[in-house]
Amino acid sequence: MNILMIDTSGPACGVALMREGRLICEMQLTHKQTHSQRVMPMVDAVLSMSETAVENIDLFGAVVGPGSFTGVRIGVATVKALSHATGRPCVGVNALEALAANAVAFDGVICPILDARAQQVYGAVFRAGPIPQRLRKDEALKLTLFLDEVEKRGEPALFLGDGAAAFEAEIRDRLGARAHFAPPQHAGLRAAGACALADAYVHAGGETLDYITLLPLYLRAPQAERERAAREGKTHG
Amino acid sequence: MNILMIDTSGPACGVALMREGRLICEMQLTHKQTHSQRVMPMVDAVLSMSETAVENIDLFGAVVGPGSFTGVRIGVATVKALSHATGRPCVGVNALEALAANAVAFDGVICPILDARAQQVYGAVFRAGPIPQRLRKDEALKLTLFLDEVEKRGEPALFLGDGAAAFEAEIRDRLGARAHFAPPQHAGLRAAGACALADAYVHAGGETLDYITLLPLYLRAPQAERERAAREGKTHG
Repeated sequence: MNILMIDTSGPACGVALMREGRLICEMQLTHKQTHSQRVMPMVDAVLSMSETAVENIDLFGAVVGPGSFTGVRIGVATVKALSHATGRPCVGVNALEALAANAVAFDGVICPILDARAQQVYGAVFRAGPIPQRLRKDEALKLTLFLDEVEKRGEPALFLGDGAAAFEAEIRDRLGARAHFAPPQHAGLRAAGACALADAYVHAGGETLDYITLLPLYLRAPQAERERAAREGKTHG
Repeated sequence: MNILMIDTSGPACGVALMREGRLICEMQLTHKQTHSQRVMPMVDAVLSMSETAVENIDLFGAVVGPGSFTGVRIGVATVKALSHATGRPCVGVNALEALAANAVAFDGVICPILDARAQQVYGAVFRAGPIPQRLRKDEALKLTLFLDEVEKRGEPALFLGDGAAAFEAEIRDRLGARAHFAPPQHAGLRAAGACALADAYVHAGGETLDYITLLPLYLRAPQAERERAAREGKTHG
């Protein structure tokens, strides 16, 4: 089985190809915010280096969020188009779970956090493993509330994701020696990690989607809608 | 500072570009043994996606081994050529140290091992960290002797590299629950990890080389020489 994974949900644009559970090719780019221009040339480069025709892809995957609203849309739209054009199914991968998969055999909890602006993070908590075991659902919340929960667990905690770098000082202040940070090359989401999760999911009997049912995962309304709601005196989750 | 790293020392062909300590682009391919054909198109793809001219690379890096004799030659020769053509310095990165950099905050020892054929491994032992701390020098030796040393340490041990997959059963037999294995997407050398080591080395004041002094790191004589020596009754370390 050939799985092609696309991630445009964050600062990096990533494309990965796995075949029978092995990573064949991965390309990752963090250069300007040009995901919409780069993603298809990167898909082309990955397929041509791997001597794989797009018709031979059995499953297309997209990292569906949480993440940048526009970024998530680009990846999901690209995968919908590839799925539609080839008649092959697709699957969505959670960005925080894919981030957690960067950690290898860490003895403690894994805390992927994304900077969600407005003093919030998108965060979740996992136990490390080839398939990270979820201990807390995804949520958009204030960093201080997220750290309250992590502190209560009383375990070493490994932080990754762009929120880890953005809030390193606050996290160290709160958790002291219990706070660990992934080095830069492991701190960001990798398309290869997301692809490995999709592969494991399908092999565990997980269902695939068609191009209509693949949807972005948003934890809160877009900024424009939040601003309108604020002007109109409404509140959003 | 722009650093371009090339790794052709093992099953994967990898190219990575870092700028001021940030990973800009990485491409990795594990598809047939075509490193000599793929490496320059991959360098081209990484530079063009990153909108970086080869003249703007400040330092070229190669993973110099231990690893495949021919593979190491390809990467070293390519980096020598790029360094000579541009007049920029180069640097060599140790393959086992780069593998050890895949581990994040593992509480125990990191054991990168490469299958060196003839029932031997190229192995070393590290303490995890952004820059792995070396506990044992590189050596080509029998797996059983390597495991003797790891067992004596009495600590959890994380295995990675192609030797980890090849000898998983023997390692588990010997170390039981103390043996840990990196998941597939973290088990192989990444050019990005090697590039991060080169970046850290240079920032710590490490010296760079010119294209003449960059050399492969071989732990034993090539197979052809070992066979000739055996025929002639000599022994090689």
